[in-house]
Amino acid sequence: MNSIIRPQLVVDKETCKKNIRRMVKKAERHHVHFRPHFKTHQSLEIGELFRQEGVTDITVSSVKMAHFFADKAWKDITIAFPVNLREIQAINELNASIQLNLLVESAESIRYLDEHLADPVSVFVKIDTGYHRAGIESSNTIELERVLKAAADSSKTHIKGLLAHDGHTYHAGSKEEILAIQSDSLRQLAELKSLVLKYSSEAVISVGDTPSCSLSENFEGADEIRPGNFVFYDLQQKSIGSCLLEDISLVVFCPVVSVHKQKQKIIIYGGAVHLSKQSLKEHVVENGTEYERISYGQIVRINDKGWGDMISNTYVSSVSQEHGIVHCGDEEFLSSVKPGDLMGIIPVHSCLAVNLLSDICFI
Amino acid sequence: MNSIIRPQLVVDKETCKKNIRRMVKKAERHHVHFRPHFKTHQSLEIGELFRQEGVTDITVSSVKMAHFFADKAWKDITIAFPVNLREIQAINELNASIQLNLLVESAESIRYLDEHLADPVSVFVKIDTGYHRAGIESSNTIELERVLKAAADSSKTHIKGLLAHDGHTYHAGSKEEILAIQSDSLRQLAELKSLVLKYSSEAVISVGDTPSCSLSENFEGADEIRPGNFVFYDLQQKSIGSCLLEDISLVVFCPVVSVHKQKQKIIIYGGAVHLSKQSLKEHVVENGTEYERISYGQIVRINDKGWGDMISNTYVSSVSQEHGIVHCGDEEFLSSVKPGDLMGIIPVHSCLAVNLLSDICFI
Repeated sequence: MNSIIRPQLVVDKETCKKNIRRMVKKAERHHVHFRPHFKTHQSLEIGELFRQEGVTDITVSSVKMAHFFADKAWKDITIAFPVNLREIQAINELNASIQLNLLVESAESIRYLDEHLADPVSVFVKIDTGYHRAGIESSNTIELERVLKAAADSSKTHIKGLLAHDGHTYHAGSKEEILAIQSDSLRQLAELKSLVLKYSSEAVISVGDTPSCSLSENFEGADEIRPGNFVFYDLQQKSIGSCLLEDISLVVFCPVVSVHKQKQKIIIYGGAVHLSKQSLKEHVVENGTEYERISYGQIVRINDKGWGDMISNTYVSSVSQEHGIVHCGDEEFLSSVKPGDLMGIIPVHSCLAVNLLSDICFI
Repeated sequence: MNSIIRPQLVVDKETCKKNIRRMVKKAERHHVHFRPHFKTHQSLEIGELFRQEGVTDITVSSVKMAHFFADKAWKDITIAFPVNLREIQAINELNASIQLNLLVESAESIRYLDEHLADPVSVFVKIDTGYHRAGIESSNTIELERVLKAAADSSKTHIKGLLAHDGHTYHAGSKEEILAIQSDSLRQLAELKSLVLKYSSEAVISVGDTPSCSLSENFEGADEIRPGNFVFYDLQQKSIGSCLLEDISLVVFCPVVSVHKQKQKIIIYGGAVHLSKQSLKEHVVENGTEYERISYGQIVRINDKGWGDMISNTYVSSVSQEHGIVHCGDEEFLSSVKPGDLMGIIPVHSCLAVNLLSDICFI
């Protein structure tokens, strides 16, 4: 503990391993290929935990990340982000050394790849099944066929399948809603499968956000799942019901720099450059009254083993660049805190906190 | 341009120099000491631009940042963040080699410093003049005197003065409101000056956020100003009137990865890990109708010299980890954009974008 002097990611390795094992088993049980998303942890050491469970194929979200893991002998990588044509040189280098799978959503990008790729590459076509961030809308079969045709016509692109990400499960209000989104998404993709099989007999359907992969026991129609966040989980996942408190394997430890008891306020060294500006609207029921609050992280009790229960009514209520303001409504806890202590914080979105802090301390 | 293949900070050096020179001159004109905040740029090269204008004393927001600049011969540094006692060893190292000024807001922290500092250090006492983030409320003279007394009683702490940061100017609705906040803050500090002078005859009053330093021509009562953001400015500063478009010296260039013309949507490689999750509520008047929108960045036209005017009704409407979604309401511009192009984005908060991307390309 004494060696933690600045905001620090702390990962409970056993919980992390348990999360990995649970998802590996689930994929096996449902006969879907498991290609976890490594953007959440971006860590070689956590990568090894996956390797120990037999995982060989992974997902990343940038060419840079693909290079990072390819350097450590990860040999089958999907970059689940619309191909960035400006990185064609780095893509060619990667493609020469590993099984690389790109993501495309336009015939235009495929034509560019056709002209500039040194060797053939596998491509997934991105389908929008309702998140409305990227991809071809599942109802737009004319556009999809145009893209598939362009890929099939090119000697440089091999159609690997269709890929969707149901990010809207993150905004769902209940387990039922998450399962309904997943089921609707799989139905849309199933309707497109015969179309893609016309162009590639081995085409697969790749899906899988953490909420649906955590909660569902029905993956019919999917050939592959790609969850990432489940390795740590976070406050957002707990809030939508994807996980329990005990499944969360990552906490950010932050030094306390000031305590304003009368204002029920603790100032921590831990702000937007550590936790990110990602907030969560929480619906709270306390002592019979209901209210909404905006949280940037939940305080947990630090103990010898790492951390334990959540401190009631105690959360990060605002962040600026380096400052975090903790509202502390627990009088007993508040009276025990002094400058120089550490505060344990479950971040709202672990992916963003990990990207900011990168260095992980394992317990 | 071709060398930019990923999200990239681009700084117009001449505009940046102009911003620095303007603030140097303003400080001279008003006979206030200029101690710019370097957390905005965290760049040795931009530090040199300040040095060329005669700046010798600086402000940072962490011990780590102080070390970074101390290593490049910055010899007088204020860490304008409540002292993090867990970094006492690094503080002792710094304090042995430079003129270090710490920030305190409790007698408790001073007692810890008294016991653990190797050599005496200068301390500012943080005063809350209305932002309500950190500091002793200006009305709480009992607490202030307790802290001043503790510092005066210690042989390890030399009282340098009172320090305030009026971060609430960032949320002001007009120039008048910003000036009113500044004036009110200076009045509160002036009332405390005789108290602090009782404990240290050389005590100074240090203030200065970018909005008030940019707009005000009255610094009566202040001895020192510490603005930081003005070196780049950003969309937030422009929106509250601290600067004009032509004063903004930093733009983030991001690759376009997909264009959905019918949806007026451009997908860029540029998300929360590049621009941050900082958003801005903008009140827009367009073609006679008024509405509010949430923006994560404003698109500007890229040209041979860097960038030019803003594209109307074209802004980053949402960000996830690596994706940015640009809503483009300018038909002509939209029809000219294709995957592989670069998009120029004025970030909402330049400090956070710079912290995420760090590497600066100067034009």
